[in-house]
Amino acid sequence: MAPVLILMGSQSDWPVMQKAAEMLESLGIKWQAKVVSAHRTPDLLKSTMEQAEQDGVPVVIAGAGGAAHLPGMLAAYTAIPVFGVPVPSKQLKGLDSLLSIVQMPKGVAVGTLAIGDAGAANAGLLAAQVIGSFDSNVRKRVHEFRTAQKEKVMANSDLELPK
Amino acid sequence: MAPVLILMGSQSDWPVMQKAAEMLESLGIKWQAKVVSAHRTPDLLKSTMEQAEQDGVPVVIAGAGGAAHLPGMLAAYTAIPVFGVPVPSKQLKGLDSLLSIVQMPKGVAVGTLAIGDAGAANAGLLAAQVIGSFDSNVRKRVHEFRTAQKEKVMANSDLELPK
Amino acid sequence: MAPVLILMGSQSDWPVMQKAAEMLESLGIKWQAKVVSAHRTPDLLKSTMEQAEQDGVPVVIAGAGGAAHLPGMLAAYTAIPVFGVPVPSKQLKGLDSLLSIVQMPKGVAVGTLAIGDAGAANAGLLAAQVIGSFDSNVRKRVHEFRTAQKEKVMANSDLELPK
Amino acid sequence: MAPVLILMGSQSDWPVMQKAAEMLESLGIKWQAKVVSAHRTPDLLKSTMEQAEQDGVPVVIAGAGGAAHLPGMLAAYTAIPVFGVPVPSKQLKGLDSLLSIVQMPKGVAVGTLAIGDAGAANAGLLAAQVIGSFDSNVRKRVHEFRTAQKEKVMANSDLELPK
Amino acid sequence: MAPVLILMGSQSDWPVMQKAAEMLESLGIKWQAKVVSAHRTPDLLKSTMEQAEQDGVPVVIAGAGGAAHLPGMLAAYTAIPVFGVPVPSKQLKGLDSLLSIVQMPKGVAVGTLAIGDAGAANAGLLAAQVIGSFDSNVRKRVHEFRTAQKEKVMANSDLELPK
Amino acid sequence: MAPVLILMGSQSDWPVMQKAAEMLESLGIKWQAKVVSAHRTPDLLKSTMEQAEQDGVPVVIAGAGGAAHLPGMLAAYTAIPVFGVPVPSKQLKGLDSLLSIVQMPKGVAVGTLAIGDAGAANAGLLAAQVIGSFDSNVRKRVHEFRTAQKEKVMANSDLELPK
Amino acid sequence: MAPVLILMGSQSDWPVMQKAAEMLESLGIKWQAKVVSAHRTPDLLKSTMEQAEQDGVPVVIAGAGGAAHLPGMLAAYTAIPVFGVPVPSKQLKGLDSLLSIVQMPKGVAVGTLAIGDAGAANAGLLAAQVIGSFDSNVRKRVHEFRTAQKEKVMANSDLELPK
Amino acid sequence: MAPVLILMGSQSDWPVMQKAAEMLESLGIKWQAKVVSAHRTPDLLKSTMEQAEQDGVPVVIAGAGGAAHLPGMLAAYTAIPVFGVPVPSKQLKGLDSLLSIVQMPKGVAVGTLAIGDAGAANAGLLAAQVIGSFDSNVRKRVHEFRTAQKEKVMANSDLELPK
Repeated sequence: MAPVLILMGSQSDWPVMQKAAEMLESLGIKWQAKVVSAHRTPDLLKSTMEQAEQDGVPVVIAGAGGAAHLPGMLAAYTAIPVFGVPVPSKQLKGLDSLLSIVQMPKGVAVGTLAIGDAGAANAGLLAAQVIGSFDSNVRKRVHEFRTAQKEKVMANSDLELPK
Repeated sequence: MAPVLILMGSQSDWPVMQKAAEMLESLGIKWQAKVVSAHRTPDLLKSTMEQAEQDGVPVVIAGAGGAAHLPGMLAAYTAIPVFGVPVPSKQLKGLDSLLSIVQMPKGVAVGTLAIGDAGAANAGLLAAQVIGSFDSNVRKRVHEFRTAQKEKVMANSDLELPK
Repeated sequence: MAPVLILMGSQSDWPVMQKAAEMLESLGIKWQAKVVSAHRTPDLLKSTMEQAEQDGVPVVIAGAGGAAHLPGMLAAYTAIPVFGVPVPSKQLKGLDSLLSIVQMPKGVAVGTLAIGDAGAANAGLLAAQVIGSFDSNVRKRVHEFRTAQKEKVMANSDLELPK
Repeated sequence: MAPVLILMGSQSDWPVMQKAAEMLESLGIKWQAKVVSAHRTPDLLKSTMEQAEQDGVPVVIAGAGGAAHLPGMLAAYTAIPVFGVPVPSKQLKGLDSLLSIVQMPKGVAVGTLAIGDAGAANAGLLAAQVIGSFDSNVRKRVHEFRTAQKEKVMANSDLELPK
Repeated sequence: MAPVLILMGSQSDWPVMQKAAEMLESLGIKWQAKVVSAHRTPDLLKSTMEQAEQDGVPVVIAGAGGAAHLPGMLAAYTAIPVFGVPVPSKQLKGLDSLLSIVQMPKGVAVGTLAIGDAGAANAGLLAAQVIGSFDSNVRKRVHEFRTAQKEKVMANSDLELPK
Repeated sequence: MAPVLILMGSQSDWPVMQKAAEMLESLGIKWQAKVVSAHRTPDLLKSTMEQAEQDGVPVVIAGAGGAAHLPGMLAAYTAIPVFGVPVPSKQLKGLDSLLSIVQMPKGVAVGTLAIGDAGAANAGLLAAQVIGSFDSNVRKRVHEFRTAQKEKVMANSDLELPK
Repeated sequence: MAPVLILMGSQSDWPVMQKAAEMLESLGIKWQAKVVSAHRTPDLLKSTMEQAEQDGVPVVIAGAGGAAHLPGMLAAYTAIPVFGVPVPSKQLKGLDSLLSIVQMPKGVAVGTLAIGDAGAANAGLLAAQVIGSFDSNVRKRVHEFRTAQKEKVMANSDLELPK
Repeated sequence: MAPVLILMGSQSDWPVMQKAAEMLESLGIKWQAKVVSAHRTPDLLKSTMEQAEQDGVPVVIAGAGGAAHLPGMLAAYTAIPVFGVPVPSKQLKGLDSLLSIVQMPKGVAVGTLAIGDAGAANAGLLAAQVIGSFDSNVRKRVHEFRTAQKEKVMANSDLELPK
């Protein structure tokens, strides 16, 4: 299976989007990351998506900020599921990014995650869950991740006021 | 493969959520719909999700409104990908539903769609796209849906002022 | 000079967008209106814009709602100035449309007008003002429109309580 | 009477939630604090609440941020009154936390306090007020707290411009 | 024990606030409802609250809209727990009411419920839960209400598309 | 004439509210500033306002943050015009303060200024304008302030890029 | 004394703004209402304000919707106190009108009232309060209005559930 | 052709607005920048715009923050196209500036750009695009700018996790 494709509108989105890569890596799933701008390199959208379908990319993760058109435009060019990550914008803190990604019209869908780092990490996790629905090894690793996470919470659950 | 599971917090969400069922049906994918309330029937969440994993359900679609906890709580109990649909609320028009569904913490993910009918239809479409990443027949039907949609737009694209 | 091009994401946007056509018509400027969806007919965006530049279209007006990507994507494909009209969305009343259109990144610009009818009419007016910067006849007609508007306000400015 | 239970979704919520503990402590009321995540340890919610009812816990205070499901899910599992504290989120500053906690559907209630430190302190105060409705010693301490607070304001009420 | 006191800023709030009365009634708890305006009858706030403490009122429920000062001002005058219900406002749909009620400063607390009918009903339920922490009969009735609610959801949980 | 009264909910509001004092001072108008909390010292509101009417205070300026009830409650107790200043809150940046102050019901009015420093300064200016409607010396000073302000803008109006 | 001047941006604002006229009339204060558009008749702003100062107009009330510039621009041309009323806009319900009126920069002030009818009525009331600070007859009428309002609330304060 | 005119409400807007100047400069278009305040120097608006029309200024760029009236009032006085830049405000981050600029009523239009630096740069770019519709040299430079921008993205598009 081809690697999960992580695309973003600008190199400045990488500190957020690398959380997706890290999550995929921790779950043993291959990924590839690239800058492809909906607005500055529109011609690349279609060819990138056509290549991805041909390669058998199972999921595309796309992050963008502000009037964030990248996830929706990628979704317009492919039948591969696209998960969108709203990158925080300087003034409106990603509320604009969120609405620009999630409020897609009927017929072209983007599965949208939370604004910022948590959303990027969860895009990686959700991609793994998608693959896990068809690959029992990946599903097992998702379950293990969940168990480890649960145990970490439970190991440190009692709290006291500082003396 | 088991049917896609469509869950919602209240029977009053069905007029919105049936758009997901209709989209799945039009793409030849089996579905099953049930009311399961995060708040009123919390015990059902875990057992429903355990059964779903055992049955091989590939995707769960969950809709809820207001303090919409259903999609996130289902996601907490399963490794199946969960897609959330913010059902419009009476006063805040679904902005509360959207934020309650999409702003999940790192480690438990919900792929969130648009508020209301379009989001429900797209949850069905995205489920089909997920299945299509592993089933070339389904992918083909998604492509056909897209082509039909495109042709419908292009057949009626010229506009005139009413005389 | 080629007609001003009025594009919109869906035929359901026409009741709003025809206010742009009516304004242009009232100022003696030719226009042409078409449905071109960023999401459902992405391939048309580039060819439509290339044709428009070749034809000498002076201004493009684009309306869309929700995750409104049309104006920004048209702007990505052309050096013709693009004016965007946020079409009211069902739940969020066009706040999503507005942010999706106006919050463009540096390097690709959309001049955005108000949400809904007033914005569409003003997109037509602004297009006329752009042409008027280079065509003194059009400028004169804009001034006449303004004067007529002012006189209409002044002719009915006194108000009384209903008896 | 069993201590008031203070629960939170993550250890990182403790700097906010300890204001509840401090308020309870200053009013002479016992408390116990634990991390219990709605999303990462969902199985703990029910057992924690069943134990709490059995122990006679009079009030549960729950804090969480983002898609804050903890207070509502605890309320789903118990008849003990639950007071929710929206913990500030990084990007949306707790507006998402507030809406996710307060907008509960009919039939499962969460009494919600202000976003952040003031809300946490007030959750402790409100818990004391609840206990005070049935315990005249606690009510007396609440009145004393109020009086001291009033006197502190009145002792320093005149203001001058810095020279 | 004295009846739960339901107060509201205007008679026009009664259609919302009577949901609190109905919930209390269905749980076998006495209530009394009155119009007391923070802005139009400020002198009544203190005397009403002093009388309530003297009578042994266990909980005060207060609803108001817009710049909703009633719940917070009642809380300023009493140590009885106050639960606030944001009544929907005409233009801002109760978002103003919600923020005016919930964002109380440290030292005076209001437990805030959802905007509108659901919030009013839940204020009644939460009042019953408070009483139930000290009265096992009331707690039992709350549990029965919850069980009935759960059974109602489960009895009608399967959904089908209309033929 | 008695000094303009500047009241605020907490000493921590003084850095904002002293801009009102400074503006009044610069316009030669006497002022007096005090901390009076709607929530922590509710009994003081009425007596402070009664004294103010008796003293002939021409305008009351009141600042508060969050669920900002002070300006509205002062207005409830007096016929002196009250001008409200929304003090920025930590998380919601004063949007809560603004709505809590401005959205008053019919029958009790607060003239509301901008959030923060500019609003406080303008509350002082507006108070001076009110006095100036009945005192030609004060009006003259307001005009002089405006002229000085205009000249300051015009003296430095040309801008250049840094070399 | 000259009548209070009520100005508005469009004749369509009159149904809202006439609440100001009605309030003034009920308090025995003369008023005059006119349409003056900041955008369509900008030249009228200055002359209208100069005439008003010459006539001794004590207060100007200005209502406008959307990008509501009228109150702020009138304030720029006069030292008479200006009270602004945000007229509800079609899509954003007056939130745009409110922010456009209230968020004035330091040095030019608008005392802003609530969105819509209540705000317009209160603008009339606040104008009367301003006059009442210098005219004991008007102050007396404001007190009488307040008393009547209080008595009306108190005469109908008990509420019962419909049988 | 006369230089593009860049106006702003305050010298403190220049760090944002100089991005417009830099963009124009990089595209070989002359510009002139001035402070003209809608509120503090209202008399200058009309004369500045009359002079601009006489000089043949092709586009006016105007930036302002908060209750940002400058772009709309300039547009009221001229038939030259006006592009507005919402300057970020301290508390509301430019959401107030955006709504105050974009929500213009029918009949007076402002083409609005994004909040802050990106919006200012894009105002310069859009001005160049307007001129480019009538001047093939400028159009060519816009195309070259776009191409350079595209190449810059493509030269650095591959991303890797830090080791």
